Amino acid sequence: MQVLDIAQRAKAAALRVGTLPTEVKNRALLAVADALVHDREKLLEANREDVIRTSELVERGDMARPLLDRLKLSDDKILAMAEGVRSVAELPDPVGRVLSALELDDGLEMTQVTTPLGVIGAIFESRPDAVPQIASLCWKSGNAVIMKGGSEAQASNRYLGQLIRAAIATVDERCMDAVQLVETREDVSALLALDEYIDLFVPRGSNAFVRYIQEHTRAPVLGHADGLCHAYVDANVDLAQAVAVCYDAKVQYPAVCNAIETVLVHRDTAEAFLPLLASAYRQAGVDMRGCEAARAIVPEINAAVAADWETEYLDLIVSIKVVDSLEEAIAHVNRYGSSHTETILTQDTEAATQFLNQVDAATVMHNASTRFADGFRFGKGAEVGISTNKTHARGPVGLDGLVIYKYCLVGQGHLVADYVGPQAKPFTHRPLPERG
Amino acid sequence: MQVLDIAQRAKAAALRVGTLPTEVKNRALLAVADALVHDREKLLEANREDVIRTSELVERGDMARPLLDRLKLSDDKILAMAEGVRSVAELPDPVGRVLSALELDDGLEMTQVTTPLGVIGAIFESRPDAVPQIASLCWKSGNAVIMKGGSEAQASNRYLGQLIRAAIATVDERCMDAVQLVETREDVSALLALDEYIDLFVPRGSNAFVRYIQEHTRAPVLGHADGLCHAYVDANVDLAQAVAVCYDAKVQYPAVCNAIETVLVHRDTAEAFLPLLASAYRQAGVDMRGCEAARAIVPEINAAVAADWETEYLDLIVSIKVVDSLEEAIAHVNRYGSSHTETILTQDTEAATQFLNQVDAATVMHNASTRFADGFRFGKGAEVGISTNKTHARGPVGLDGLVIYKYCLVGQGHLVADYVGPQAKPFTHRPLPERG
Repeated sequence: MQVLDIAQRAKAAALRVGTLPTEVKNRALLAVADALVHDREKLLEANREDVIRTSELVERGDMARPLLDRLKLSDDKILAMAEGVRSVAELPDPVGRVLSALELDDGLEMTQVTTPLGVIGAIFESRPDAVPQIASLCWKSGNAVIMKGGSEAQASNRYLGQLIRAAIATVDERCMDAVQLVETREDVSALLALDEYIDLFVPRGSNAFVRYIQEHTRAPVLGHADGLCHAYVDANVDLAQAVAVCYDAKVQYPAVCNAIETVLVHRDTAEAFLPLLASAYRQAGVDMRGCEAARAIVPEINAAVAADWETEYLDLIVSIKVVDSLEEAIAHVNRYGSSHTETILTQDTEAATQFLNQVDAATVMHNASTRFADGFRFGKGAEVGISTNKTHARGPVGLDGLVIYKYCLVGQGHLVADYVGPQAKPFTHRPLPERG
Repeated sequence: MQVLDIAQRAKAAALRVGTLPTEVKNRALLAVADALVHDREKLLEANREDVIRTSELVERGDMARPLLDRLKLSDDKILAMAEGVRSVAELPDPVGRVLSALELDDGLEMTQVTTPLGVIGAIFESRPDAVPQIASLCWKSGNAVIMKGGSEAQASNRYLGQLIRAAIATVDERCMDAVQLVETREDVSALLALDEYIDLFVPRGSNAFVRYIQEHTRAPVLGHADGLCHAYVDANVDLAQAVAVCYDAKVQYPAVCNAIETVLVHRDTAEAFLPLLASAYRQAGVDMRGCEAARAIVPEINAAVAADWETEYLDLIVSIKVVDSLEEAIAHVNRYGSSHTETILTQDTEAATQFLNQVDAATVMHNASTRFADGFRFGKGAEVGISTNKTHARGPVGLDGLVIYKYCLVGQGHLVADYVGPQAKPFTHRPLPERG
């Protein structure tokens, strides 16, 4: 099928799924979960095809082994997929929420109600788990989705796509095209050009991958390319706590976007703090790269070069810089950070407030590990992704990032002519009580 | 000054103005209003330059006369400008509002707080009134703005820019670069490419102008190119009311985006309704272009061609189509409409609900004129513009469209390591009471 045809079907399906009652949407999600459990043998069979093909690539050295682990499904993984879909059914429906209600004049009432976006383009790498997860989030929020998964997982993805579409058909056949898959890179290129039909792209993957999507479409893109996060250790600090947070934020899971890459430390704390930090990092095998002042205190720290302040290592490597003041720390973060997640460690509430206010990032923290920046931890139930955008949705994004709103104005034949000119009627602009 | 330098200054100023207290921001706005009143003779002098230059163009036939009227300032217009700026000072501060507050665990609290976007690029045509209006909206919302006005108004705009910057300097000199102007088309081209510095473009002007901006930048653009709006007259309708609304929506001000271009009418009402509508439109000199079925009822209606259903006339011209059902009307609106504003006229609540739910537009209405879709009428105090975007802000946009939010997480040294693995602590995810 041509990608244009797929996009047009998605747009038509979006108008239908956008107005489905919550109960019907949830019924479809439960049908997906049941089918995953019931048909897991067939899914494993499709997955074996992918695993065999990919194993050969790994053995030939054309692909990294960890990818194979992420690709390979098991009974447990499939049951977890089904659980994930059921948990989306349990989330409150993000569509139809009244955001505001205002009487403009007698009998002329305006409500602002959440609505789906329309068609989501979801492009991701490797793991087949992403297919039911993304499809269920888009479905629950009343959107149609066109997905492109990793080519290694093609057979698994294809089976999952059919399973989900068949489950949707059991509740409403006309909504099947709310979930569609494309398979090739050429399809993705074609999709990126179809901004007339796609209301939002949600890419998940490496920095380079996300940046490619951002640079090749005129449609809005929700996500982040870089996650260059900092921890700033202020003058007045609980040393043990600061070491523990800097350790957690770097070592607990270094390959993720909300791990820190740079520790900034105030000159007055550096002498006491850096030896403790270096000792902790040394035990975890962290490669430390610091400025001259840091190396003067802990000689084992390697010399940092200019590029270190702008590198997202995603690895057990950290850069360390001594700063003269809170202001210098804030300026460094605003210059080199990727507006993702930034934390200050301090016992000084005033300094913390200044940092939280003046640092320009999606999530700012005080005495907490940057690793908390995550949709599940932030209580959103499920995560669409983390956004460093300045518009629409920022930070960890849940179902709320997949909806927008429309204004509904209900009158009794009201005319604008009555509200203009010298005899103009005034507006009442009286807030209305919330209704079911 | 180079545009890159201007953009960098704007970005630096944005970090400052973004954290100014409400009282300081309002003081600057009142200083702008006072300066407008006090220095209006000098502004009128600058404006005379623009008027003389433009009059010559009008006399040579190189420019339309209505533009001259919009360009020409007067004492009254300047006093109205000052009033407008004062009214922005009176609006609630959109920055620092707590959107949600959640306890993640004991002593680990998250708040979601509104913040400015950063740097706004505002590009508009002709009227000098737009300079203080847009500057004050951006300033009140804590953003820096780079403006490009119409070249006819160059001297007026330049004077206004200096006046606003001088007023800002009286409260905080370091924030002066929060308001800057550029003057040439080349500057605009350069600005559109600087999406690294500009967080949002807000263009105001003709369809072609807005579309040009949308197509030449990677930054988000807030606004609408087209305003192709419909009124649908259903089977069960109050005829006099439907005629009055269709008249108001077309005739009251035909040159604006929220005026209707097409009337759709249900087959069962057409015979009774169309003669009444045609009689009203005839008296207003409206050129009517209809389908065969409409012309069979009212022969004076001219024959519509296919292009009529997709044309935004912005003039006393209307297209008229008879439809077989509510569903056909909804399909027509979703196909040809520009997702701006759509209204249904009906006494049938069920039909109205279906229309409001299934029509995909920023504003949907029942028994009201599309002309109500406007920020002031919708109670927003001041209007940034009307958006047909699907992300960020939709419909009439007030100050709320110039802010986003950040998450602030405050802990006591909380580590993610404690919340993962077999011994993982659970999150409480307990909503926190709102605090001042």
